[in-house]
Amino acid sequence: MRFLILGFLFVFTAVGARADDKVTAFTLDNGMDVVVIEDNRAPVVVHMVWYRAGSADEDPGVSGIAHFLEHLMFKGTDSLDPGEFSAIVAKNGGRDNAFTSYDYTGYFQRVAADRLELMMQMESDRMVNLQLSPDDIVSERGVIIEERNQRVENNPSSLFREQMNASQYLNHRYGTPIIGWQHEMSVLDMDDALAYYDKFYAPNNAILVVAGDVAPDAVKALAETYYGAIQAKTNLPERLRPQEPRQLAERRLSFEDPRVSQPYLARSYLAPERDPGAQEKAAALTVLAELLGGGNTSVLNEKLQFDTSTAVYASAYYRGSTLDDTTFNLYIVPAEDVSLEEAEAAMDEVIADFLETGVDAEHLERIKMQIRASEIYVRDDVRALANRYGGALSIGLTVEDVQAWPDILSAVTEEDVMAAAEEIFTDNRNSVTGYVLAPEVTQ
Amino acid sequence: MRFLILGFLFVFTAVGARADDKVTAFTLDNGMDVVVIEDNRAPVVVHMVWYRAGSADEDPGVSGIAHFLEHLMFKGTDSLDPGEFSAIVAKNGGRDNAFTSYDYTGYFQRVAADRLELMMQMESDRMVNLQLSPDDIVSERGVIIEERNQRVENNPSSLFREQMNASQYLNHRYGTPIIGWQHEMSVLDMDDALAYYDKFYAPNNAILVVAGDVAPDAVKALAETYYGAIQAKTNLPERLRPQEPRQLAERRLSFEDPRVSQPYLARSYLAPERDPGAQEKAAALTVLAELLGGGNTSVLNEKLQFDTSTAVYASAYYRGSTLDDTTFNLYIVPAEDVSLEEAEAAMDEVIADFLETGVDAEHLERIKMQIRASEIYVRDDVRALANRYGGALSIGLTVEDVQAWPDILSAVTEEDVMAAAEEIFTDNRNSVTGYVLAPEVTQ
Repeated sequence: MRFLILGFLFVFTAVGARADDKVTAFTLDNGMDVVVIEDNRAPVVVHMVWYRAGSADEDPGVSGIAHFLEHLMFKGTDSLDPGEFSAIVAKNGGRDNAFTSYDYTGYFQRVAADRLELMMQMESDRMVNLQLSPDDIVSERGVIIEERNQRVENNPSSLFREQMNASQYLNHRYGTPIIGWQHEMSVLDMDDALAYYDKFYAPNNAILVVAGDVAPDAVKALAETYYGAIQAKTNLPERLRPQEPRQLAERRLSFEDPRVSQPYLARSYLAPERDPGAQEKAAALTVLAELLGGGNTSVLNEKLQFDTSTAVYASAYYRGSTLDDTTFNLYIVPAEDVSLEEAEAAMDEVIADFLETGVDAEHLERIKMQIRASEIYVRDDVRALANRYGGALSIGLTVEDVQAWPDILSAVTEEDVMAAAEEIFTDNRNSVTGYVLAPEVTQ
Repeated sequence: MRFLILGFLFVFTAVGARADDKVTAFTLDNGMDVVVIEDNRAPVVVHMVWYRAGSADEDPGVSGIAHFLEHLMFKGTDSLDPGEFSAIVAKNGGRDNAFTSYDYTGYFQRVAADRLELMMQMESDRMVNLQLSPDDIVSERGVIIEERNQRVENNPSSLFREQMNASQYLNHRYGTPIIGWQHEMSVLDMDDALAYYDKFYAPNNAILVVAGDVAPDAVKALAETYYGAIQAKTNLPERLRPQEPRQLAERRLSFEDPRVSQPYLARSYLAPERDPGAQEKAAALTVLAELLGGGNTSVLNEKLQFDTSTAVYASAYYRGSTLDDTTFNLYIVPAEDVSLEEAEAAMDEVIADFLETGVDAEHLERIKMQIRASEIYVRDDVRALANRYGGALSIGLTVEDVQAWPDILSAVTEEDVMAAAEEIFTDNRNSVTGYVLAPEVTQ
């Protein structure tokens, strides 16, 4: 189950970085933000550029264009042939890749520290000099459609998640899949890609993160040479997206697919996200998700899996690192002979019981200990640290927010957790409950 | 119950006009379509301008702007003071009004036939010379917000319909209310209004309908003088809206409001709309809705209201006159002591039974007779005829489509109806079922 893996990954990416990370942040004259993370244990460097533009910044009707453009950025520029970018990175012993999310699009390379200038030269080049041919469009569109086929169409859980999200958001673009709706992806064209590129790809809409065996002054000098030479875009749109209306009706959906071998249920609630300078509520929700559904000793697993054998798996998930309202999610895989209805009723009972009895203090301390442990782990991983700063800055958080996050998590009290739980669970009108099951076989 | 009234109105507006209506259609050099309907029984004229732009043509985040602009069009122009437009119409013994829908915005006046030129002069003036002040924006925004309060916020059924529509459409703008989401309406400003006006208000995006005691040649001469003098907009956007992805999960929602005195249930299915030159399926769906839920002798009412006393009201509703995919709707108000679950099960049984046993031939003939009767009725109403042509042309239908519609309805066979019913009811994955009820009172 993919969401299980995602759930675990989350533990290690939700936590913050400490003020004692050797982090230097500054802004170039053209508005491009730069974060330098020093880590001299190995002579390598991670070089990343994050654009404050993701799938939720797309225009209606061209879903998937942010991700399509991410692919197209590996085609040619004025001075590079299609595919040459990655070939040069590889020839220099490096690795490169890219990723698109709701709120950002990022490009990264990991290379020997002495190749940093080459990376900057190439990355700044494709920020402004992208060259696309009709052939690039046709071939790469085939690639993203095939990617959708593999990741979504062939995966009932992914199809289900798309329908859940589309039902959760009545107005906001988070209801549209990052990879795009199939019927819209199939007609994406060069104009669509270039319109998105021209609108959002600019130094004053980007964050440069360099992490590894580097000195801040040297990075600054190089950044000024390559990125600083690019003019700021004066017509960059304000980042104000349509927000949700009041959600007034609890929604339910039922997703049937013959490929489903194990029925399960999911519930999502609209939930607040991390806000700059005000991360306390998101911290409480992060801890709440761990308490309820993080691992075998969590409340849901203890009650549903071990005490009553109602479920074979339970989890809770909260992804607070978004620009706009996010979701708090619950998943239950019922035990054999337990119906989805019974499992849901049992889940609701556990939640109601939790609201009544409150947090176990020892359990809360254990969760906080785990968070501290995972934080130490993450600080050993320079790329994870770079991701943390890039991701945070691309949703409007500051370096200070990132560095304050572990302390804010540590300061979460029982009262904070219960207040967050009350806020999420008391009003179910902004929730969606979904059942995933195989269709009944009729003779 | 408002939906009941809407249901009845529908009978009279769904039918078409005959080729023997005295209708003349032509297009001005600048692309403005003109329809003239002669009716010399009284010395009055209805003068309408329809723009091919409604709420579904709005940009994200500014829901309600089409309707807001409709209000603002009664403010001043270069030569008229705010409010003067309607004052002049009234002073000349006429009435005026306007309306906004998903697919169009329309303005109309009914005046003595000899005042037609004055109407054209004023209507063509505000097509291009609208003048808005900051005061206009503030005061009229208060008016539309109050309109929303009265029509929607104070009406649980309206709030429910909004949530149903938002759940029905995962991608298309029909999921956004015409009047707008409250939080977006409250920040609509002059730039938003003028952007919509500049984008869509142009002779080549408009249809002039003149109906009443007029001669086509005289109308043409006047139209050329006033509307023909306005330049076509060369950058009019193509009317291609984001369409629905595959809907893969049956949705349900539950709407609770203490003001609900009578619980009821609604079901909507995504359904095809009338298409130019291909109205047969929409005709079959129109007849199907009448058969299932049009009045006391309909299948749902006969079975649920009279045979089994399960319901006190049942109806079916299909509005085919849209640009994009529309919905087929069912409503059931259960009898006292019948739960919504029981009523729904009974409704589904009636539908299943209908799919099995098919159409009663005598019932079908009766429906067709009613349609013919309502058509004769409508032809007596010059404004209804004008609405018919204006509405049809604004969603891309032609004068010929409007005139062919009654014959296409008459030609609907039992097989057509059953094929349409199969198409709607066989796959419930594109359906939404909603319960409306008062919250349980807890002590």
